[in-house]
Amino acid sequence: MLKTMSEPDKKEITPEEAPENGKGIRNSGNASETGNRKTKGDFDLAAVYVSDAQYNRNIFFDTTPQAIRLYLLYNHWGLQILVYAFILVDLALAIFEDPAVVPLPIWVTSVIELVCLAAFTARLVHYAKVIPRERFWKDPKNICIFAIILLSLVDMIIYGALKASGFYAVRWSRVLRPLLLVNITEGRQLRRAFRSIRNALPQILYVFLLFMFSVLMFSLMALKLFGKRMPAYNFSVYFAVFFITYILINTYIFMSVFLAVVYNNYKKYLKEEVRKLVRAKRHKMVRAFGVLQERKGEEEPVVSQACWNQLVRLVQPDISNAHRELLWSVSDDNNKGCIGKVAFVQLADLLNIQVIMMKSRPHPLKTWLPSLYLSSPSRLVCRMVQHKAFMYTYDLIILVNAVFIGLDEEDPLIANVEWAFLVLYLLEILLKLYSFEPRAFFSRHQFWNWFDTIIVITALIAMIINSALKLSGGYTSRQILDIVFILRILRLIRVVDNIKRFRAIINTLIKIGPTILTFGQLIVVVYYIFAMVGMELFKGKIRFFEANSTDPDKAFCGNPLLKNSVFAKHNYCKNNFNNVVSSFILLLELTVVNQWHVLSSGFTAVTHISARMFFVLFHIVVVIIIINIFIAFVLEAFFVEYTVDQSNLQSSLEKKIEELELGVKQEKLDGNLVDAMETNDNDMGNSESTKEKPALMFKIACKRYKTVDGLLQRMFEADLDPEDFAEDEDFDPNNPSNLNFPNPNFDSV
Amino acid sequence: MLKTMSEPDKKEITPEEAPENGKGIRNSGNASETGNRKTKGDFDLAAVYVSDAQYNRNIFFDTTPQAIRLYLLYNHWGLQILVYAFILVDLALAIFEDPAVVPLPIWVTSVIELVCLAAFTARLVHYAKVIPRERFWKDPKNICIFAIILLSLVDMIIYGALKASGFYAVRWSRVLRPLLLVNITEGRQLRRAFRSIRNALPQILYVFLLFMFSVLMFSLMALKLFGKRMPAYNFSVYFAVFFITYILINTYIFMSVFLAVVYNNYKKYLKEEVRKLVRAKRHKMVRAFGVLQERKGEEEPVVSQACWNQLVRLVQPDISNAHRELLWSVSDDNNKGCIGKVAFVQLADLLNIQVIMMKSRPHPLKTWLPSLYLSSPSRLVCRMVQHKAFMYTYDLIILVNAVFIGLDEEDPLIANVEWAFLVLYLLEILLKLYSFEPRAFFSRHQFWNWFDTIIVITALIAMIINSALKLSGGYTSRQILDIVFILRILRLIRVVDNIKRFRAIINTLIKIGPTILTFGQLIVVVYYIFAMVGMELFKGKIRFFEANSTDPDKAFCGNPLLKNSVFAKHNYCKNNFNNVVSSFILLLELTVVNQWHVLSSGFTAVTHISARMFFVLFHIVVVIIIINIFIAFVLEAFFVEYTVDQSNLQSSLEKKIEELELGVKQEKLDGNLVDAMETNDNDMGNSESTKEKPALMFKIACKRYKTVDGLLQRMFEADLDPEDFAEDEDFDPNNPSNLNFPNPNFDSV
Repeated sequence: MLKTMSEPDKKEITPEEAPENGKGIRNSGNASETGNRKTKGDFDLAAVYVSDAQYNRNIFFDTTPQAIRLYLLYNHWGLQILVYAFILVDLALAIFEDPAVVPLPIWVTSVIELVCLAAFTARLVHYAKVIPRERFWKDPKNICIFAIILLSLVDMIIYGALKASGFYAVRWSRVLRPLLLVNITEGRQLRRAFRSIRNALPQILYVFLLFMFSVLMFSLMALKLFGKRMPAYNFSVYFAVFFITYILINTYIFMSVFLAVVYNNYKKYLKEEVRKLVRAKRHKMVRAFGVLQERKGEEEPVVSQACWNQLVRLVQPDISNAHRELLWSVSDDNNKGCIGKVAFVQLADLLNIQVIMMKSRPHPLKTWLPSLYLSSPSRLVCRMVQHKAFMYTYDLIILVNAVFIGLDEEDPLIANVEWAFLVLYLLEILLKLYSFEPRAFFSRHQFWNWFDTIIVITALIAMIINSALKLSGGYTSRQILDIVFILRILRLIRVVDNIKRFRAIINTLIKIGPTILTFGQLIVVVYYIFAMVGMELFKGKIRFFEANSTDPDKAFCGNPLLKNSVFAKHNYCKNNFNNVVSSFILLLELTVVNQWHVLSSGFTAVTHISARMFFVLFHIVVVIIIINIFIAFVLEAFFVEYTVDQSNLQSSLEKKIEELELGVKQEKLDGNLVDAMETNDNDMGNSESTKEKPALMFKIACKRYKTVDGLLQRMFEADLDPEDFAEDEDFDPNNPSNLNFPNPNFDSV
Repeated sequence: MLKTMSEPDKKEITPEEAPENGKGIRNSGNASETGNRKTKGDFDLAAVYVSDAQYNRNIFFDTTPQAIRLYLLYNHWGLQILVYAFILVDLALAIFEDPAVVPLPIWVTSVIELVCLAAFTARLVHYAKVIPRERFWKDPKNICIFAIILLSLVDMIIYGALKASGFYAVRWSRVLRPLLLVNITEGRQLRRAFRSIRNALPQILYVFLLFMFSVLMFSLMALKLFGKRMPAYNFSVYFAVFFITYILINTYIFMSVFLAVVYNNYKKYLKEEVRKLVRAKRHKMVRAFGVLQERKGEEEPVVSQACWNQLVRLVQPDISNAHRELLWSVSDDNNKGCIGKVAFVQLADLLNIQVIMMKSRPHPLKTWLPSLYLSSPSRLVCRMVQHKAFMYTYDLIILVNAVFIGLDEEDPLIANVEWAFLVLYLLEILLKLYSFEPRAFFSRHQFWNWFDTIIVITALIAMIINSALKLSGGYTSRQILDIVFILRILRLIRVVDNIKRFRAIINTLIKIGPTILTFGQLIVVVYYIFAMVGMELFKGKIRFFEANSTDPDKAFCGNPLLKNSVFAKHNYCKNNFNNVVSSFILLLELTVVNQWHVLSSGFTAVTHISARMFFVLFHIVVVIIIINIFIAFVLEAFFVEYTVDQSNLQSSLEKKIEELELGVKQEKLDGNLVDAMETNDNDMGNSESTKEKPALMFKIACKRYKTVDGLLQRMFEADLDPEDFAEDEDFDPNNPSNLNFPNPNFDSV
């Protein structure tokens, strides 16, 4: 096996890899038959199981071929994107509805909303066709979506009727819109985040009550000690001691305790969830194995290589033959031609590991113009570009560039210098393309090469357009200049990535990026709900006047109740709930606790003392709970990163592949190259130093994770019970009562 | 052994417990002799080792009897308190020195400072006599103190000379004063905290550089995008996106990363230090064993019970016989009459475990007036007080009291109601004293009983004095009333402790209390240094005018450079460096990042742009480093607490004692009482329900820790290598070359 690994071209099509419908595969229809002949339906079913395991989908679909085809369609990325697009449109309606940023007639927004609701209904009907009916109505997600659609319709009718007859009406169902994000099938991460919050709530509540008690005690003391003689006691020793104690206890200690409680609960429940996830994944793989297994006499059931190949090609059609063979050789450790259940179950994880294939190809110039490319000046250029000094020189150029960016760009000299820098950057890319193989340079995983090239080319195009505009009409486009500036500044990031110490931190930040998106959705859901409620409560109560306005109401934000208030004095009138954009900006200010007191008392003054509840609730939900969960997540990600860096802990699967790769490496002379490429993109395979390398090499992109689940699972991998798998071994796929394994209670909020 | 445990009165003095100088103990002078006869010097030496191990002192003292006596004196608590008192006086001199809060003539402060310096010199000379000369000069601590004393003297002379000749002079040596806190022998915790910071610095530096880079990038972008058109772009979509990105990256993500890095390093190095600490402790115990061991033929060396008893009485003179016997029975598991090295080494930890002795004594009234106390009305009262409802009733009374506190105290009705509450509280204490045994009620570990009683009695006294003053001269003392108010409010804390969920949180907070003192010292050191530097830089630059002042300079804080500045407009003039108290308050405001920008730009305006360095440095040191280390500490303490609560993890020593206690419990009928007492102080041993209990019971005060080290060691106990001890087993106390075991590099900063 190992020998064939390095020369896959010679066995492009093996007997097992015949076309799908060849080799006498019948459409027997019975999916759970345990014979040696597998139908197309069997393979489809198994592929769905593997794919679900791979992406951690936990949908209890019907196993009829009809339902499976519908299920595959349901999971199509196009439909998923479409659903998110409709949700986005639905949420964005708030911009056009009263109180609007851009007012649109009521019938336009209503029609758009009806279209969105129709889309959600269609998606729900599709889902109902995929899973058994009794399961459909047991799932709170579906009931939630159904209720949201129904309530929205009712609300639209009531609102329309009331408006038509001239009554006051409230579009209360708008609060429900963001809940769609939580309840659609794709909102797994978001549901998990909400569950994590819900689970931490009791613990947080106790600390919060204690915190409130502490604040109450301090308030009572302040009332008694300073209440009636504030000016006299201001800044006295009394006051200083009181202030220090208050700050210490209620700011530093209690906030730390909140973080500790949230972090502890977050970690505990996440661990539990990931454990469930891993168990569900293994169940699904065992089911897939049950569909495809062959039994020879009394031996343990196995899956043949032919079956396995067909399955993998169904699950991941774009997988290369070499990659697939690598995976097979990992599974079939002993080269028996078939694998048992234990090895089969690993398939989902194996497919999730990003394997980068590197073909050692000669530089195109070497093929086309060998005499020129291999001449000594050309070799000198190549050697120069590959030298460390080349990288340092360009780091220096970028730093000098940074200084010039800080200078006044309207000076013509500096504008010209910018052109010089751009030429230097272009030269760098061209030189690299000359000395490195272009396809390797632009391979999918060379993030920084792509980054550099796109930024430099875009900047070039923008500057050319700008110059053209200037020359033609003497007109400079502000937008284009802005883009050029931003691109120039982004270019500076490259310097940081060249320094090893910084790269570790940046890698972790990049890794937690996708999950920050989950938190972004969480924030959007909470903000949207609060913005909708806030707009109904406070719209129009506070008005903003332009700076050059001479309206006498300007002094108190258009509301006489704000006369002489700090709110009006500091001119916070722009912070209002008069449309959804200002609402979001106001909530953002409340999140960073910027003048929380002034803002909340302003809105309390124009309505009622109970309005403060709104602001307190927002503070508790966002600042105390969500922000702390976010910090907990970042902390945990960094701790995992530090631990991994120290112990070089790798999953057993990654280790296996590395072991095998060692076998591959034995044939190489330059064994360190793979590692070097991981850390330094300048060492790319070039014609000079890689003459003796094999034609094909693999490397694991283990430092980046495809899915957020991957990071989460890795987070708790060390803590996961290794016996978890042995437990699942008891599962007998031939026992029909076991076939309907309980769907882990995962997709329900 | 177990049987005698419960009736220790009968064997008050056993043959082994003869007076110290009995049983033919000679003063042979040779401390490391391995015969069966031990001298007084041997016991002294062993006792010093055990005591050092117990309190984690790592001082390499001379082993001559002379030096040991000096060493014991050096460690006397009186002298230690005296040293801290002198340091406090030295630090407090800043109040009286120019720029002074209370100006004193220069000769007064100089004389006081000379006295302090003399005291520090005396302490240093004392220390030099205790440890070998070559070690003394190798220790950076001693050199530091010596340098501080010398530099202070030099500075005083220069300052005096310059002032006398009318020149400008700076008392620069005042910056060095807080360093005494760090470098004295007793400042172990503080040194550890500083080491922890120093160790985390490189990691923090990298994140900080990245953070600075990120801020720079955003600044450049802001400059280019908004620099010249700020009003136009204010609050546009551009600005909102920029603002959100900035907040997300630089506030939430980078601050989390700072916390993660600080926490990770803190944990890593603390673990390493605690491991060293445990190893040093075991070394010391092995040395003590070496001094006291007896060898019988070829057997392993042992320590006899007689030796052990004498040693324990030397180390802890106030230990009761029963407690000592309990410890011995734990050490001498097999009842052999002597213990080996392994058991002996545990002694330091055993002595650190707080064992509470509970003598089941009848109520004094039962002895004096049995007929009355045992009558049925008296029994009814006792049963009533012990009932849960009694506690709840008083919780309710406290809550009602809280409402009344919030009302206006000048209403005569409410003032009278306060008297009623006070009477109710007094009644509660009296009733409890009637139904519970008074000595048990006021035992050392009944924190809340003491708390209640002291608060109620003090409030009673204060109110009586206040009433007396009012009646005599119609004069009400504000101070006394304030004390009464504070006491009333503090009384409310009791309610929280009665709720089980809250008690867990409060217990953790109480446990981390002592370490917060270490952080307090840390903050004082940093604040003091910054205050001294700030006073030299900024004193007199900004002046504060009283509210009723009519000085025209008031509008710009007495400095024309502040004309029209935000600093002067918002009247921040009180925030200045004109004396040490305002400096501390100003630094506190900077710590909580209260108007950091306005304050720092104000001081920059009156001096120079480079003054901003001072404020940036302060922010980095205090807000980014120290506050994060503090949060890390609180987090870790809570995680340990949660883990302990979940797994009931207990140290092996505590388990051993509990095993033994089980033996004791077998003789009891009411086995749960000990646990109940731990959690509920109302269930105290009373004559009704504890008739059948043995006369004496033990319980481990394992929920509270005597020393901060105890908490730290417990923190990492689970992670400590259990093989650590086996390693130290190789240590041969009879090998002279090993006797001078390397003092772990612990006491040096």
